Amino acid sequence: MFKTEICDILGIEYPIILGGMIWVGRSELVAAVSDAGGLGLLGAGGMSIPEIEQDLEEVRQKTRKPFGVNIPLVRPDAEDLIQASIQAGASVISTSAGSPKRYTQKIKDQGVKTIHVAFNVAGARKSAEAGVDVVVVEGFEAGGHNGVDEMTTMAMVPQAVREVDVPVVAAGGICDGKGFVAALALGAKGVQMGTRFIATHESAPHPNVKEAVLNVKDNGTCITGRTLAGPTRAVKNKLSEMILEAEKQGTSPEELLEMIGEGRSIKACVEGDCDEGTVYCGQIGGCVDTIKSAREVIEETIAEARTIIEGLQPMVRA
Amino acid sequence: MFKTEICDILGIEYPIILGGMIWVGRSELVAAVSDAGGLGLLGAGGMSIPEIEQDLEEVRQKTRKPFGVNIPLVRPDAEDLIQASIQAGASVISTSAGSPKRYTQKIKDQGVKTIHVAFNVAGARKSAEAGVDVVVVEGFEAGGHNGVDEMTTMAMVPQAVREVDVPVVAAGGICDGKGFVAALALGAKGVQMGTRFIATHESAPHPNVKEAVLNVKDNGTCITGRTLAGPTRAVKNKLSEMILEAEKQGTSPEELLEMIGEGRSIKACVEGDCDEGTVYCGQIGGCVDTIKSAREVIEETIAEARTIIEGLQPMVRA
Repeated sequence: MFKTEICDILGIEYPIILGGMIWVGRSELVAAVSDAGGLGLLGAGGMSIPEIEQDLEEVRQKTRKPFGVNIPLVRPDAEDLIQASIQAGASVISTSAGSPKRYTQKIKDQGVKTIHVAFNVAGARKSAEAGVDVVVVEGFEAGGHNGVDEMTTMAMVPQAVREVDVPVVAAGGICDGKGFVAALALGAKGVQMGTRFIATHESAPHPNVKEAVLNVKDNGTCITGRTLAGPTRAVKNKLSEMILEAEKQGTSPEELLEMIGEGRSIKACVEGDCDEGTVYCGQIGGCVDTIKSAREVIEETIAEARTIIEGLQPMVRA
Repeated sequence: MFKTEICDILGIEYPIILGGMIWVGRSELVAAVSDAGGLGLLGAGGMSIPEIEQDLEEVRQKTRKPFGVNIPLVRPDAEDLIQASIQAGASVISTSAGSPKRYTQKIKDQGVKTIHVAFNVAGARKSAEAGVDVVVVEGFEAGGHNGVDEMTTMAMVPQAVREVDVPVVAAGGICDGKGFVAALALGAKGVQMGTRFIATHESAPHPNVKEAVLNVKDNGTCITGRTLAGPTRAVKNKLSEMILEAEKQGTSPEELLEMIGEGRSIKACVEGDCDEGTVYCGQIGGCVDTIKSAREVIEETIAEARTIIEGLQPMVRA
């Protein structure tokens, strides 16, 4: 066992949350993370209501443990997605990409727990003020959608923790017991992992995507979309080179969006094209070298955390 | 006491290094950090040889503990600065902004310890191959000169540690026991701090600079100079706004350098103009709220580290 406050709040054994990842975190991975004692979150950003209902039915077939759904609030039908998720058994709703004030109370009123993902201290504060049960602060090193302030996990976590009265979970740059203990030392009460869970047997994307994560080096990811005010981090490839060159040339946001088009995540995650498709991935990808089961990720993280914590003791006695 | 391998290597009591900071780390701060058990490093980047000799004479008057000098290798007279520093009693030379291969062996041949500052795993590897005694890896969140890969401390430290056989020190995002323990959990054998030491009684800059660090919020710093391939992090102000706007407009590097001109650090650190001058500062500045003595910074960091490590124990036994 390894408990912190968020375990009681979310009804889980280990303070490890699966980050919401479109095309990656589907029923098999969600169920595997939850069943292993963490919190599985369905990456519902690109899903329809029937798809969400189907996946959550599958999750319920595979595990009796709690699970949740991550819903980006940019979805115009976010409220419907939230309700459908709750009806289908989600005991936690994680929101991002929008104001935490919009639905938090409605969700809590139904006895469901709430998480909001923030990218700076002000966002953490607004989340706490909106009444969320847990705030996730996600650092610049994380894969996927990033904050414009580019706050890193090391710098942001302690500042968010002292700002709010609700438990803070650290995301970005964590793939094992090292990052887990570091997050706790910084004052977080748990971790959220994305990149590490992409490289699992149970994750949904094309094997080429998992391979891309295994092969990425420390500096093998980059941020694109700064000029769109919607920065994202992904594996460097032909697509990212094209986008960066266009941004450097001063291409307008409209032209850039036109150039990028639709379906770049699908291109990678479904079709397996990792040159022209987008492979969201964090800087910690350089530490992810083998495919594991979700259970192995969780159990090895906890086991390594114990070893590290025990190893720090002699220093204190010196 | 709180010892790790770098304490034996560098001859210090606590694995805490003063980052080399031009116009900030002069004799008083260097001596105070060393005397309190850390490693004081003179920020010699903007100093002449007579000035270095003068400051190191003052350091030797104030403490018998080991001290060193940080020398950016962009200085054309770097070799002379290194020799003058060693002659003046420096037992450690820290280099940055250039190849670690150039002088490392010459320094070691004189029985002096070497540190090189890297910004990604390849840089850490090259430093180790060059034979340095300690590698500092500095994250994107740090103030001052940054790496172009924008690797964060959380993501970079574990990747650097597994890449090299020499001890790694973490820099960037650390100002107290939280970051100190986090760095150790990630595999580092010590920390280097910059921003925290700016806000000390003994540091050299104008009080307005120290005030600027105290007042900065989590997202109150920014990176300028990406288009110059020489990104630096400083407090957001009129100057940084001007530079960012010019970079956005596609201003050429030559025009940009012309616009920035010379003496922006002096403008802030000596003249106290923090609107038009450059106040280098890390993202952790939002956690730095009061001026302390260098001794307080070190002792409080160690005391807090002990408390955190002891606090992690019950989780392991659970």
